[in-house]
Amino acid sequence: MSQTTVSPLAPDTIAALPALDGVRLSTAAAGIKYAGRPDVMMMVFDATADVAGVFTRSLCPSAPVDHCRHALAAGRARALVVNSGNANAFTGRLGAEATARTADATAAALGCGDNEVFLASTGVIGEPLDAAPIVDALPTLVASANGEGWLDAARAIMTTDTYPKVATRIARIDDVDVTLNGMAKGAGMIAPDMATMLAFVATDADIDAKVLQALLVEATEPTFNAITVDSDTSTSDTLLMFATGTAGARGQARLESADDRRLADFRRALADLMKDLALQVVSDGEGARKLVEITVTGASSPNAAKRIARSIADSPLVKTAIAGEDANWGRVVMAVGKAGERAERDRLAIWFADVRVAVDGMRDPDYSEEAAAAVMREPKIPVRVDLGIGQGQATVWTCDLTREYVAINGDYRS
Amino acid sequence: MSQTTVSPLAPDTIAALPALDGVRLSTAAAGIKYAGRPDVMMMVFDATADVAGVFTRSLCPSAPVDHCRHALAAGRARALVVNSGNANAFTGRLGAEATARTADATAAALGCGDNEVFLASTGVIGEPLDAAPIVDALPTLVASANGEGWLDAARAIMTTDTYPKVATRIARIDDVDVTLNGMAKGAGMIAPDMATMLAFVATDADIDAKVLQALLVEATEPTFNAITVDSDTSTSDTLLMFATGTAGARGQARLESADDRRLADFRRALADLMKDLALQVVSDGEGARKLVEITVTGASSPNAAKRIARSIADSPLVKTAIAGEDANWGRVVMAVGKAGERAERDRLAIWFADVRVAVDGMRDPDYSEEAAAAVMREPKIPVRVDLGIGQGQATVWTCDLTREYVAINGDYRS
Repeated sequence: MSQTTVSPLAPDTIAALPALDGVRLSTAAAGIKYAGRPDVMMMVFDATADVAGVFTRSLCPSAPVDHCRHALAAGRARALVVNSGNANAFTGRLGAEATARTADATAAALGCGDNEVFLASTGVIGEPLDAAPIVDALPTLVASANGEGWLDAARAIMTTDTYPKVATRIARIDDVDVTLNGMAKGAGMIAPDMATMLAFVATDADIDAKVLQALLVEATEPTFNAITVDSDTSTSDTLLMFATGTAGARGQARLESADDRRLADFRRALADLMKDLALQVVSDGEGARKLVEITVTGASSPNAAKRIARSIADSPLVKTAIAGEDANWGRVVMAVGKAGERAERDRLAIWFADVRVAVDGMRDPDYSEEAAAAVMREPKIPVRVDLGIGQGQATVWTCDLTREYVAINGDYRS
Repeated sequence: MSQTTVSPLAPDTIAALPALDGVRLSTAAAGIKYAGRPDVMMMVFDATADVAGVFTRSLCPSAPVDHCRHALAAGRARALVVNSGNANAFTGRLGAEATARTADATAAALGCGDNEVFLASTGVIGEPLDAAPIVDALPTLVASANGEGWLDAARAIMTTDTYPKVATRIARIDDVDVTLNGMAKGAGMIAPDMATMLAFVATDADIDAKVLQALLVEATEPTFNAITVDSDTSTSDTLLMFATGTAGARGQARLESADDRRLADFRRALADLMKDLALQVVSDGEGARKLVEITVTGASSPNAAKRIARSIADSPLVKTAIAGEDANWGRVVMAVGKAGERAERDRLAIWFADVRVAVDGMRDPDYSEEAAAAVMREPKIPVRVDLGIGQGQATVWTCDLTREYVAINGDYRS
């Protein structure tokens, strides 16, 4: 469980997140599992915020995911409460009782409905979560919430993460600048024992919940849905986005249609912020030493391109080759072949960075092993596959599969 | 590339394969890649045999797979020629020329059609295969073929395998005993660089090619299609079955319908032999120290059960937990959830051997960590998941994911 050294792929600097009108944060050390560190985080909205969410596709989701899916129907939020140390997943009736108790107590403390309280939990699966320490911490959490707590909040939700993941962007809507702040945690794309990927984005923009949902779904596909550490899908993946609407006081007219052209810059900023967070997650992949960007072009459709890119990114043989700094394009061919999408062997071309290693279904006659080897020694490795049959393209990011990954995941529970 | 120690999961003894009427074998050291060891194997049929085949589902198959698929249309075989050291995969036009040249030369040497010659290649992907050393070895291969060469043939097709894989069974058709001899190679379910899984079965039974094909497909699903080492699908997987019909001379009437009830015992023997070979392959999984049998019961259908079992078997997090001797049922839940098949969290139950660790969607209240830990220390670990929603069931076999797997596959090409 203890990864003590920071990933070599960590960002050089941690972004400084500005305060956001209408959002306050706080943390507490509730002793859920860890000793001597904050393990509960609260985000409070001074007034009701619009909210959107995207959740795991797992058919065995955690209790907090069940709660959020239900609460999301009303599209309104007053608080987010997140704990690390216990995922409250596969905890049956007791799990649902724990989320209900936490939501009820938070709602009572804030004077709102329990469907305005959003919850997420990350940590060990299958252990009943005792809601009492979280409920007991609520008065302190509410009282101490302030506008400066972003980085502390990002730290409180870490599990096997080796660094906190935050990002901020500014977007212009009409003539008003709005801010987007985001945080994420996750160190296996999914390491279900330390379940999982959580990400929270808040903005002061005034955007209707339905529009927010459309924007969030649209931005998820090329970002959080385009990263993979180990192909394992968590029970707990949760991405929530809150819009306080406080920019309305500065003259930003509320946006009520996803087709509104005034959203263009916000869309761009949101996609950029989510990509930033997503790459921070994959760069902290368990045991990772290489960040791999896999781009597939010339596929029969964008979906086909993405399936092929993911097949390459999920292949243990591709990932171990990259760990070994081996420009092993034969394994890339294998992964293209198993993806189940249209491919014509004799049209395939493959590059590592700008070194073309294969063309027309064969080893490139001009291929230089030394040039390819130099690419593989870098910490960031772009791989491109052109299928030569259509216009579909997609990019997926992954990391290498190292002995450290096996050690971290083979040794964790014991 | 060099796994010098034999897998701890290897069978205690290597089966002694009897001679089979009408089948002769030989090997040669053609120097394709390895020095000082046989790397070409020939199986010759004295008279034309009926033949059936099952191949990789990869959309980028090797040149020999293309050749066999084409040749199989006629359902007749006089020879099988297999080389190790080079997979002749992703070799474009040159690859097809190499298979054509090998098939033509073999056909000329035996006086048969080139569609009566079956080919398989296993080894490095993407390197052009020079047919010349194989063609040059043909006179010796034909002249030296004899009935005793089964084990030598199984050794000649090895790549990263740490032991030769052979099995033999006897079946009764009416009052006549017929023999089935089989061999396989493979040490990643697929290690495409050392591509791949090859298996060949021969029998003296007299069975029409169409019936043989039906029997082979039927027996593949619960055997070779139920093992996975690393979820990577090879470009070269080839399973061929030959029936010489020489048992006809001993009074076995030719079988021309797959529904013929006289096939019952042969069916059983074939399934048993193929399961034996399949488990030998997975037991030689790269870096494997544990053989894991995953049985899913109570699923909505047999296909759903198999998809869920495979999702568990392919999960890096389940496989690393098993390498760490950790009875980590939370990861099993995760893998059930991501399979995409119907599951109800609160009906799930999970066992490691006879230790029930989870029931009704929660940790089993009577669960003994010590009893589960004792199971995990064994070399063979049965895992059972009951979904509690239907009658579908399936079993899949895999091995653990160890640091040695990463080392073998990260270090190989260099």
